[in-house]
Amino acid sequence: MRILVVNVNTTESMTESIGAQAAAAAAPGTEIVPLTPIFGADSVEGNYESYLAAIAVMETVRRYPERFDAVIQAGYGEHGREGLQELLDVPVVDITEAAASTAMFLGHTYSVVTTLDRAVPLIEDRLLVAGLRARCASVRASGLAVLELEQEPQRAVESIVEQARLAVVEDDAEVIVLGCGGMAGLDSAIRSRVGVPVVDGVASAVTIAESLVRLGLSTSKIRTYAPPRPKTFTNWPPH
Amino acid sequence: MRILVVNVNTTESMTESIGAQAAAAAAPGTEIVPLTPIFGADSVEGNYESYLAAIAVMETVRRYPERFDAVIQAGYGEHGREGLQELLDVPVVDITEAAASTAMFLGHTYSVVTTLDRAVPLIEDRLLVAGLRARCASVRASGLAVLELEQEPQRAVESIVEQARLAVVEDDAEVIVLGCGGMAGLDSAIRSRVGVPVVDGVASAVTIAESLVRLGLSTSKIRTYAPPRPKTFTNWPPH
Amino acid sequence: MRILVVNVNTTESMTESIGAQAAAAAAPGTEIVPLTPIFGADSVEGNYESYLAAIAVMETVRRYPERFDAVIQAGYGEHGREGLQELLDVPVVDITEAAASTAMFLGHTYSVVTTLDRAVPLIEDRLLVAGLRARCASVRASGLAVLELEQEPQRAVESIVEQARLAVVEDDAEVIVLGCGGMAGLDSAIRSRVGVPVVDGVASAVTIAESLVRLGLSTSKIRTYAPPRPKTFTNWPPH
Amino acid sequence: MRILVVNVNTTESMTESIGAQAAAAAAPGTEIVPLTPIFGADSVEGNYESYLAAIAVMETVRRYPERFDAVIQAGYGEHGREGLQELLDVPVVDITEAAASTAMFLGHTYSVVTTLDRAVPLIEDRLLVAGLRARCASVRASGLAVLELEQEPQRAVESIVEQARLAVVEDDAEVIVLGCGGMAGLDSAIRSRVGVPVVDGVASAVTIAESLVRLGLSTSKIRTYAPPRPKTFTNWPPH
Amino acid sequence: MRILVVNVNTTESMTESIGAQAAAAAAPGTEIVPLTPIFGADSVEGNYESYLAAIAVMETVRRYPERFDAVIQAGYGEHGREGLQELLDVPVVDITEAAASTAMFLGHTYSVVTTLDRAVPLIEDRLLVAGLRARCASVRASGLAVLELEQEPQRAVESIVEQARLAVVEDDAEVIVLGCGGMAGLDSAIRSRVGVPVVDGVASAVTIAESLVRLGLSTSKIRTYAPPRPKTFTNWPPH
Amino acid sequence: MRILVVNVNTTESMTESIGAQAAAAAAPGTEIVPLTPIFGADSVEGNYESYLAAIAVMETVRRYPERFDAVIQAGYGEHGREGLQELLDVPVVDITEAAASTAMFLGHTYSVVTTLDRAVPLIEDRLLVAGLRARCASVRASGLAVLELEQEPQRAVESIVEQARLAVVEDDAEVIVLGCGGMAGLDSAIRSRVGVPVVDGVASAVTIAESLVRLGLSTSKIRTYAPPRPKTFTNWPPH
Repeated sequence: MRILVVNVNTTESMTESIGAQAAAAAAPGTEIVPLTPIFGADSVEGNYESYLAAIAVMETVRRYPERFDAVIQAGYGEHGREGLQELLDVPVVDITEAAASTAMFLGHTYSVVTTLDRAVPLIEDRLLVAGLRARCASVRASGLAVLELEQEPQRAVESIVEQARLAVVEDDAEVIVLGCGGMAGLDSAIRSRVGVPVVDGVASAVTIAESLVRLGLSTSKIRTYAPPRPKTFTNWPPH
Repeated sequence: MRILVVNVNTTESMTESIGAQAAAAAAPGTEIVPLTPIFGADSVEGNYESYLAAIAVMETVRRYPERFDAVIQAGYGEHGREGLQELLDVPVVDITEAAASTAMFLGHTYSVVTTLDRAVPLIEDRLLVAGLRARCASVRASGLAVLELEQEPQRAVESIVEQARLAVVEDDAEVIVLGCGGMAGLDSAIRSRVGVPVVDGVASAVTIAESLVRLGLSTSKIRTYAPPRPKTFTNWPPH
Repeated sequence: MRILVVNVNTTESMTESIGAQAAAAAAPGTEIVPLTPIFGADSVEGNYESYLAAIAVMETVRRYPERFDAVIQAGYGEHGREGLQELLDVPVVDITEAAASTAMFLGHTYSVVTTLDRAVPLIEDRLLVAGLRARCASVRASGLAVLELEQEPQRAVESIVEQARLAVVEDDAEVIVLGCGGMAGLDSAIRSRVGVPVVDGVASAVTIAESLVRLGLSTSKIRTYAPPRPKTFTNWPPH
Repeated sequence: MRILVVNVNTTESMTESIGAQAAAAAAPGTEIVPLTPIFGADSVEGNYESYLAAIAVMETVRRYPERFDAVIQAGYGEHGREGLQELLDVPVVDITEAAASTAMFLGHTYSVVTTLDRAVPLIEDRLLVAGLRARCASVRASGLAVLELEQEPQRAVESIVEQARLAVVEDDAEVIVLGCGGMAGLDSAIRSRVGVPVVDGVASAVTIAESLVRLGLSTSKIRTYAPPRPKTFTNWPPH
Repeated sequence: MRILVVNVNTTESMTESIGAQAAAAAAPGTEIVPLTPIFGADSVEGNYESYLAAIAVMETVRRYPERFDAVIQAGYGEHGREGLQELLDVPVVDITEAAASTAMFLGHTYSVVTTLDRAVPLIEDRLLVAGLRARCASVRASGLAVLELEQEPQRAVESIVEQARLAVVEDDAEVIVLGCGGMAGLDSAIRSRVGVPVVDGVASAVTIAESLVRLGLSTSKIRTYAPPRPKTFTNWPPH
Repeated sequence: MRILVVNVNTTESMTESIGAQAAAAAAPGTEIVPLTPIFGADSVEGNYESYLAAIAVMETVRRYPERFDAVIQAGYGEHGREGLQELLDVPVVDITEAAASTAMFLGHTYSVVTTLDRAVPLIEDRLLVAGLRARCASVRASGLAVLELEQEPQRAVESIVEQARLAVVEDDAEVIVLGCGGMAGLDSAIRSRVGVPVVDGVASAVTIAESLVRLGLSTSKIRTYAPPRPKTFTNWPPH
């Protein structure tokens, strides 16, 4: 089966590391196709860029020329998953929800450690809308920007470990979720330092997408995610 | 003061009727500037179009060449308000929240009557995220598409009246909110038929925007809605 | 239009300062009529006094001899607004709800800074009942009694600033609500010190009341706030 | 021990029947003292009368000349219990909460059957504030006014039975709570007709008040219900 | 009347102290029968032992040869009460719920102080399911194991006092609930040290069970707690 | 990898059909080991039997002599998963949670269709505790007992289809979850009749268990699910 894993920002090196993380988690026979959005910001760290990414991810997937079996939106706490579900017949998995859903099988509560403080409310709201917030102990910010994660992996690990430990001690978290697509690959280093399960969104999204495909399940088309109605568009899509 | 009232779809006649509704509600001295998005769908009836409208509204406001004092996003249950709040220093009012907030001063509970059934979950989710859902008795669909509201105003009134009555009788609603920007102007007809207060989102958003401006209040820039960080954009904005 | 602004306690100087704050927020053409309750405590700082104020405010408004267009109950976190809504055909706005509702247009979360610690649970309960608590980050006490606010305005500012800063730093509040009618007029001093929007309940209630009147909206009379049924009263009203 | 059982309205015959119901539930050695408020409405069926009753009950209890061990406020869904808790050192039990709390020991969910439809939101709000609403399946109105309960007991039973059955069949209620002090004494007739436990608020409040006294427990005075601070009152109490 | 008070662990000395606490709270004429489960762990401190206790308590009660009027399950935060309610026609009271329910009559919020940190989530979940968590300020662990409570009563008091004080100061608790059957008898020592009401689960459960019996109320048999359907059992009960 | 799939009742034919459903969903290389509890009821339809099954499943897994990689508890809405998580180092997946979690990736809301009405509250409570209830539209009973599902598969399909359709039409469900381990294998028949995705708990639990194993994730041992402390047991385990 072929799974598209779509980065939300236009930084190619991040697409590559997300793709590598996805491939490492994939079952034999799963082809991972990492995609970079055809437009947008080099990093997504707020609502403007996130809304832009939402539509960029949709347009990027629409232009993908081959058949595929599932799509993963690889941005943590970003807008847009609902639109993809309308546009596509195949399963759509957002890493925010994949990680939270996976974490809930591993402990009584989980905390998310993300990048900048400004990302915290976006994540909280996405978890609320997804119905996955009841057992979220906290969302904490490491203070690192998205691109710093890549440039300074050792500092990233330290910052995430520090917040993960605080989540465990102060917030009673039993599982840590890595709250940024750009944290892909840091999970085992953090797990060994903090002593609790650490869930990576990209990896868990891959196994969930594979599972849905294997079970023959896809998005319900009966109401919220029915295909878009025919429309007349002005100045869209951009050339 | 000058208030931009931005339609979420590209149908000019709807922009006009929204503008007229806004102007009728405005205080002396308030200039209402109705805007049509520079790209997007002729009507917004689902997540794909709504996400596209979110970014279209932001780009439209960014290109508006004059000074302005507040912005109203005139789509009911649509995405995007958070992005506008990041981009702008002036107050941003979404008609979904304006109407709900106003309705809560008028009765113990309120119900929203919207267009198509597929819009219901979007509205519910937007109210949930806005923290305004606790006293929402129900969101009901009239079954009319957005553009039908304009083309068949009498049928629109009948359908909305029917659902409003059911909301009162079956869901214990005490106030009705008109859940579509395209319903602007239908409020008094419906009020006289149903016997409860009927809140129009555009009109209530105008008074809230005016009030915030007059009180010297605007969006907090300390965290969630801090200005976007500097980014490098690829293929954006479209030419 | 004429708006009655009713203090909840019998301290005339406080009625005056509330009236001045209301008048400063009012639009041209709005007449503000500040009223002192015809009976009750000199300051309201607990449930007994608050329940007494509830009925005192109602009786005071009932005896007001002229026509009026709206009523503002100018006590933060106090009982009684529902009774006024039953008795009157014109809109009733409680400053607790006005301020919370306004704050929600300005940031992702808000905190209330009030007077004594014992007022905190009353405010929390009123926000809960009003359906406005979902985005309340915290309610904090400055430790000052109601009458001290007036007597020691500088100390009041300092105490409120201290709690407002803690609300921002520890509770992730993005907007501060002044949780006492007696804090009227302190908003700009606090805003400049804390760096986030500061909402005054009296001022925001004035603009909301004006807006409801202008939109022709008033309390739904269909159920919760239907006029009182005819009753035989014993020993009431007091002479 | 002596327990004051305070009616919320001024109809003496209702005070008598409440007193009789209380006495029937009391343990040997418990003296029940039924009290009628010294002012107020002959029946309480809305917020105005309920707020008036709140303060009337407090003043009535304050003037009671003898020592007592506990107070029961015998109105269902009425305001005021918090004020009594401030004023008194002995336990205060509201029949709304007594009945809900008791019902939760008897089934997975309970429904309240009350008098007029307008009482429903008051009851829902009181249960919400009391933290006892999570397992409330519904609050239903029998359509009878408070004084009709007394005048037409057979019709009252029929109406309550009808709503109780609907609560069981449509709302999945497993226990019925009688939602009016005036329904005292109807419980066994209804129980035998509906086939589920029926909880009377007055009777359950008596056993709870007795239990608190016997266990040496009373209201916490540390914060919310600390004694009122010294105040200067104007025109209060009435002569 | 005869009330069975069933310990959840097999330590006889703890059964005795629970029995003594129950007897001290019982009304004249109430016979308390303390029971030790016929199988299980010497102390219950986690889910495995708690589930084992659930079924052990049920089997123990089933084998009790005499008539009885009510059953108290004397483990704090343990599984099993729902099963007892199915098996029996008489009232069943769990001390977790008895204490929480009682505490809610005494203050705006309550906190539970329990034994080990690992018991905290069990208690939180049981309160959630019971619909009694809305006014729970916190559940705190004293750090003492169940059997240490008995062996080192003075150290137990110190540890509980410390957490109770933190609950009052940091969590705004107004009432303390003793969250372990093994804390029976420590309430007055802690009350005098912390200055807020302290609720013991066993004592409050006795008064609630007595009250239900006196009021002629027992478990609704209509749905959740209907008697078990006839089954064929394999290898059960054990000989 | 080897996954134990444990039936909650002692009916061997049901263990077989659960095992077959699991094997059909398993990836190549996954060995499914269906287990029947070593004691308990032939069908589990209430709290007593469910609590008995909880401990029976634990004892059955403890006695399994070989190494294994994950455990699935194949009863819908049953007690006990938390105990297994304490006892084991490998992942534990309950089909209740597996199905709900999977359904949430497929639609805005889901409904569960189960067997008897008395199972409904158990399922609701388990979803509540698991933090997966926010998007559950309803839990509906087909009216068939567990063993009837096997004996009358065609009638079972009809009954489930009827309730599934009602869930879609009346409760706005977008996905149907089969709420009984004994419904394994009926999913495709129901899906084709109702037109929405139908999630089988056993199949989805298999893919989740496989995913956790492949990702190297297992239960957090830091708090709630730490291994049981050393205990002295009386009369347990049974011989």
